[in-house]
Amino acid sequence: MRILSGIQPSGIIHIGNYFGMIKKMVESQDDGELFAFIASYHALTSVKDKEFLERNIFEAAVNFLALGMDPEKSTFWVQSDVKEVLELYWLLSNHTSMGLLERAHSYKDKTAKGIQANHGLFSYPVLMAADILLYDSNVVPVGKDQIQHVEMTRDIATSFNNVYGDVLVLPTAKVDEIVATVPGTDGAKMSKSYGNTIDMFGPKKTIKKQVMSIVTDSKDLNEAKDYTTCNIYKLCELFMSEDELKELQQRYATPGEGYGHFKLTLLDKINEHFEPYAIKREKLLNNPKEVKEILAFGASKARKIASAKMEIIRDLVGL
Amino acid sequence: MRILSGIQPSGIIHIGNYFGMIKKMVESQDDGELFAFIASYHALTSVKDKEFLERNIFEAAVNFLALGMDPEKSTFWVQSDVKEVLELYWLLSNHTSMGLLERAHSYKDKTAKGIQANHGLFSYPVLMAADILLYDSNVVPVGKDQIQHVEMTRDIATSFNNVYGDVLVLPTAKVDEIVATVPGTDGAKMSKSYGNTIDMFGPKKTIKKQVMSIVTDSKDLNEAKDYTTCNIYKLCELFMSEDELKELQQRYATPGEGYGHFKLTLLDKINEHFEPYAIKREKLLNNPKEVKEILAFGASKARKIASAKMEIIRDLVGL
Repeated sequence: MRILSGIQPSGIIHIGNYFGMIKKMVESQDDGELFAFIASYHALTSVKDKEFLERNIFEAAVNFLALGMDPEKSTFWVQSDVKEVLELYWLLSNHTSMGLLERAHSYKDKTAKGIQANHGLFSYPVLMAADILLYDSNVVPVGKDQIQHVEMTRDIATSFNNVYGDVLVLPTAKVDEIVATVPGTDGAKMSKSYGNTIDMFGPKKTIKKQVMSIVTDSKDLNEAKDYTTCNIYKLCELFMSEDELKELQQRYATPGEGYGHFKLTLLDKINEHFEPYAIKREKLLNNPKEVKEILAFGASKARKIASAKMEIIRDLVGL
Repeated sequence: MRILSGIQPSGIIHIGNYFGMIKKMVESQDDGELFAFIASYHALTSVKDKEFLERNIFEAAVNFLALGMDPEKSTFWVQSDVKEVLELYWLLSNHTSMGLLERAHSYKDKTAKGIQANHGLFSYPVLMAADILLYDSNVVPVGKDQIQHVEMTRDIATSFNNVYGDVLVLPTAKVDEIVATVPGTDGAKMSKSYGNTIDMFGPKKTIKKQVMSIVTDSKDLNEAKDYTTCNIYKLCELFMSEDELKELQQRYATPGEGYGHFKLTLLDKINEHFEPYAIKREKLLNNPKEVKEILAFGASKARKIASAKMEIIRDLVGL
């Protein structure tokens, strides 16, 4: 079973990214053959700054490698290092009806938010289809907002197969229904766009400030507190064992401690949890050459499969 | 000065193609550096038949080589043999507003005619922009219906340059105002879609039949005829010297010959004119290996320029 995952190259990642996506991606390496790429071509639909893009691609690579991406076991590369995907993208375009693209929610949502309606953004689902189909991917883990794109991929692949025979493998979207919705510091879903994140890496001072800003009710030291409605506790659930959580519940029930104490407990757990990853990350950040070699190795593995697939497809269409 | 021309891969070409476009393209090899490609990717917006496409690419190559394309002097290749164009196409897509594409006449015309509105057709002008800009083309000879596409190319290039600096060369459309409109057998513009063509190559019997079907008035042998309004004469103008035309005018003015005679005169001139090309064409048709080598040589010349350009551009955008 081949699993395909695309990674948006964004420099700073928060614990919502980790528990929402990264952890699952890393764990999926035990379930099947993972193909994971840093979506540099897709990023260009919005990023127009060279240094920013380069830095973000590099940091995305470092972050995922630090967090457990295994470049030997999996195939891990930068999208734009395997250009075959753009040829498939063009070939698929000729089997993609305009109506299908015009019905894409994400395009409509983005333009409604005032993002400039450029052709790259509009045709994004066709490139995503090429990403998926080029590697004969069986499973594509996605958030709910991306289910439609996998359905579009199936539609495009079916149109193509109807003309040229069963050459493209229809993928299945895998939506994790029990995704732990990680609350942000204000209790809403943790998201960069809400400004309520707790970073995974980066200055300890920043992370402390973020944790200390978690919104709670105003009960004071001498009152018993309700853990079931507390954002601090909800975040602790991600890092603590059953026993540790029981102990924490006791502390909530017992007057004498304030939310500040619980926040420091959470902060300790966060730092403890990510410490080994942070060390590995620092090492990689200081070894850009090694990171580049790992990505080049991944690209060569991906290219081998991509070029074999494109050879078949080119022959079928007559190129 | 670099001149860029795209060639639609269509197997059978008629004398309207020749005098309207091919002759000028071949002659332009003396005016500057000609870059001419067989537009295999573009063809896929409508062609879904492998054998048909392969045959048409091969025959287009043979036809143009037979008619004077010089693969040493010029750069002559098949579009899909230089994949760099698709990477530039993607990069340009992110600088192409949807409004620009939605205003394209040719897309609106095609869909109005009932051609399926697929994404390839819609985004055709972006791929055309990539074709032009990849080779720093200065001049693009086009028919009037394609002027808008060159203007769109300038718009897209300007948007891109505004972000990344003056890296893309703005091309100029060259519209030949004095294009001899070659009349078809019914007097309307010669065009495959009107079914009024006279083929350049192919069975002598077919060409004779086409010439004999030229529409004239119904004056008989014993009447003097008006050459100024005669389709046969208009076609003869393409093949005859001043002296020959004067002699033909005499024959029109002198009773005793019918239109059938003039048609045979035209047929002789057509056969005589294309005879040397037809011989060269036959030779190439029987030497597919040689044709493939010529195209591979052209692709390697084109790729050298394309990959150097893309190296610059990739670095500018941060890939």
